[in-house]
Amino acid sequence: MIYLDNNATTAVDEKVLEEMLPYLKGEYANPSSMYDFAKKPAAAIRDARVKVRDFFGAKDEKEIFFTSCGSESANMAIRGVLNCNKEKRHIITTKVEHPCVLNTYKYFEKQGYEVDYIGVNAYGELEVEELKSKLRKDTALVSVMYANNETGVIHPVEEIAEYVKSKSPETRVFVDGVQAAGKIPMDVKNTKIDLMGISGHKFHAPKGIGALYMKPDVRITSLIAGGHQERGLRAGTENVPYIVGMGKAAELSLDALKYEGTEVKRLRDKLEAGILKNVFNARLNTSVSGRVPNTSNIGFEYVEGELILLHLSDLGICASSGSACTSGSLEPSHVLRAMGIPFTALHGSIRFSLSRFTKESDIDYVIEKMPAIMDKLTSISPFQEELQALRQRKQH
Amino acid sequence: MIYLDNNATTAVDEKVLEEMLPYLKGEYANPSSMYDFAKKPAAAIRDARVKVRDFFGAKDEKEIFFTSCGSESANMAIRGVLNCNKEKRHIITTKVEHPCVLNTYKYFEKQGYEVDYIGVNAYGELEVEELKSKLRKDTALVSVMYANNETGVIHPVEEIAEYVKSKSPETRVFVDGVQAAGKIPMDVKNTKIDLMGISGHKFHAPKGIGALYMKPDVRITSLIAGGHQERGLRAGTENVPYIVGMGKAAELSLDALKYEGTEVKRLRDKLEAGILKNVFNARLNTSVSGRVPNTSNIGFEYVEGELILLHLSDLGICASSGSACTSGSLEPSHVLRAMGIPFTALHGSIRFSLSRFTKESDIDYVIEKMPAIMDKLTSISPFQEELQALRQRKQH
Repeated sequence: MIYLDNNATTAVDEKVLEEMLPYLKGEYANPSSMYDFAKKPAAAIRDARVKVRDFFGAKDEKEIFFTSCGSESANMAIRGVLNCNKEKRHIITTKVEHPCVLNTYKYFEKQGYEVDYIGVNAYGELEVEELKSKLRKDTALVSVMYANNETGVIHPVEEIAEYVKSKSPETRVFVDGVQAAGKIPMDVKNTKIDLMGISGHKFHAPKGIGALYMKPDVRITSLIAGGHQERGLRAGTENVPYIVGMGKAAELSLDALKYEGTEVKRLRDKLEAGILKNVFNARLNTSVSGRVPNTSNIGFEYVEGELILLHLSDLGICASSGSACTSGSLEPSHVLRAMGIPFTALHGSIRFSLSRFTKESDIDYVIEKMPAIMDKLTSISPFQEELQALRQRKQH
Repeated sequence: MIYLDNNATTAVDEKVLEEMLPYLKGEYANPSSMYDFAKKPAAAIRDARVKVRDFFGAKDEKEIFFTSCGSESANMAIRGVLNCNKEKRHIITTKVEHPCVLNTYKYFEKQGYEVDYIGVNAYGELEVEELKSKLRKDTALVSVMYANNETGVIHPVEEIAEYVKSKSPETRVFVDGVQAAGKIPMDVKNTKIDLMGISGHKFHAPKGIGALYMKPDVRITSLIAGGHQERGLRAGTENVPYIVGMGKAAELSLDALKYEGTEVKRLRDKLEAGILKNVFNARLNTSVSGRVPNTSNIGFEYVEGELILLHLSDLGICASSGSACTSGSLEPSHVLRAMGIPFTALHGSIRFSLSRFTKESDIDYVIEKMPAIMDKLTSISPFQEELQALRQRKQH
């Protein structure tokens, strides 16, 4: 099996599982309990919080709140900030956010909020000047994802936060960091970003654990009220095994960042170059630079993406046509539509996303198999004339 | 180590962990993905949902929604119901709910809701007639826990739901079933209960997984918006390992219900009788009947509970003075205060909670050790005269 869908989810690192197992076995105490038996899990949570602090590049572990997933982190941040600042009713976000963020803003639009959705250019790069021009006195929140899940394009969130705070210090800046975490260095303490959410299963922790970074002066309401856990902001008995796992995954990912930026990038670039060279109807949907090192989004013109994925799956290759959260829907990706990708390539766009566990032989195999798949699929395409023209253009 | 704090959390059953492990190792696909690799985790979720359906005694697995914990289930139910029915602004609940429920109602009180908190008698039994008398046309929600976490007292939730629906069909009934699940049979399909929340780690699944049962005609808003997961009501990539674990734990607990009601009960009763016989300042804080089979709440008069727990912890015995979610607070339990437990016993009340893994030798050991602990602690109590009088009364 060749797994090139690491933006959807990742394998749990064996070292992460090893660190978690004691807390799924003998060390099962509720960390809030008073007896000695609870001291080890309580200490393990403290330790994990320090590791996640370092992963974010945060100043203090008190700025880290554990949640159950990236979607919870985003909902907690967005709803929490807006609930605490009800007189401001304007939000700025982007057209290419993850559904968990976009759907939350759609809910607030229904509640009477005004939301500006900022677009991207043909390469998926944010229209930053347009974003800046929309900032108002009553802007409660500016919300921009760090890196896009479908294209890997990095948005200049630090620059945006800097600008927002210089013009409107009370406007909060939330960054969905889910697709940046573990792929590029993060250093929140030296930014003006107020809140940032991440999800463990995107960097080799299990599915079902997330974190929210929050600067000390930020006030939010809790999404899940109840007990005193997470400094009263997130109730529920702590998921000790997964918190420990996320701590270990953060530590390992921090150590592997250099590898990610060199080796994973080299393999991604090799895959991309190999496909673009060997497959006549392939086009890169982004520019080459300004992306996280593991992601490639390639359009195959005049072919159906679902059919490509089916053929890849038959060869044991996992890739995707967009966010797993919207799969099953027949609508083409809202991200690629926002980029204005021509409809000839829109339906046949495939995301390949690597990880530090991707092998060179995986990449070689995909490069080898792709032309035959595309020959077969283009031969049954109803767009034979257009394909012929494309083939000739490519040959020149 | 002797673990008698199973109402705080339980050990993960080895069979549960075994069932989970493949999904923490090779079977890591995102269940929403389209390729073959995702089919096994997707099927495992379907299978777990059927098991949890049977555990609730629900009619259809579509009525089961997975969450990250009991607190999330409660917040999702309460906030979701109230958001969908904004013209009704009255809530009925009890004084003895879990903090995750009580704190959520305190939040809604601040938003202008009127909340009636129904009391309990000296044995912790709900004042059902008082509850019935408070029902109004604008009652949006009646919310009663199934079994109390501190006393184990079972509330007549089926009778309450029956009454509420007969008088006010549009009023929703939410039951916090966290402390009943796995201890007594549940059969929601034959009740008028609209929503019920449970938490996996109270019945030998890991901490960090919960479920919400909801009848098909109930409408709620989602707490965590985003992707299409859980029929659009709970976003976030599914925590496949824990969902599988909760399914297995539900299956095992259902099988063990008879053992729970006979053997666990026998051991609980033996512990209780042994302590009440051998310890002169012990009193049962509840009546003998009408409780879940695993819980005993005993008051030790004129002694500090924290000191008892410390001495028990030194002997490797884990018990608690109340909810782990409020531990660290010096306030006496809100549940025991609502029962009007005399202050002489209020501060020295201990909850022992057993599980199917409790051994006879555990119980014998606690019965053996308790008198010496109490001799030591009563000897340093400032209430020597009162203790002397109590000792004499006991001898007669």
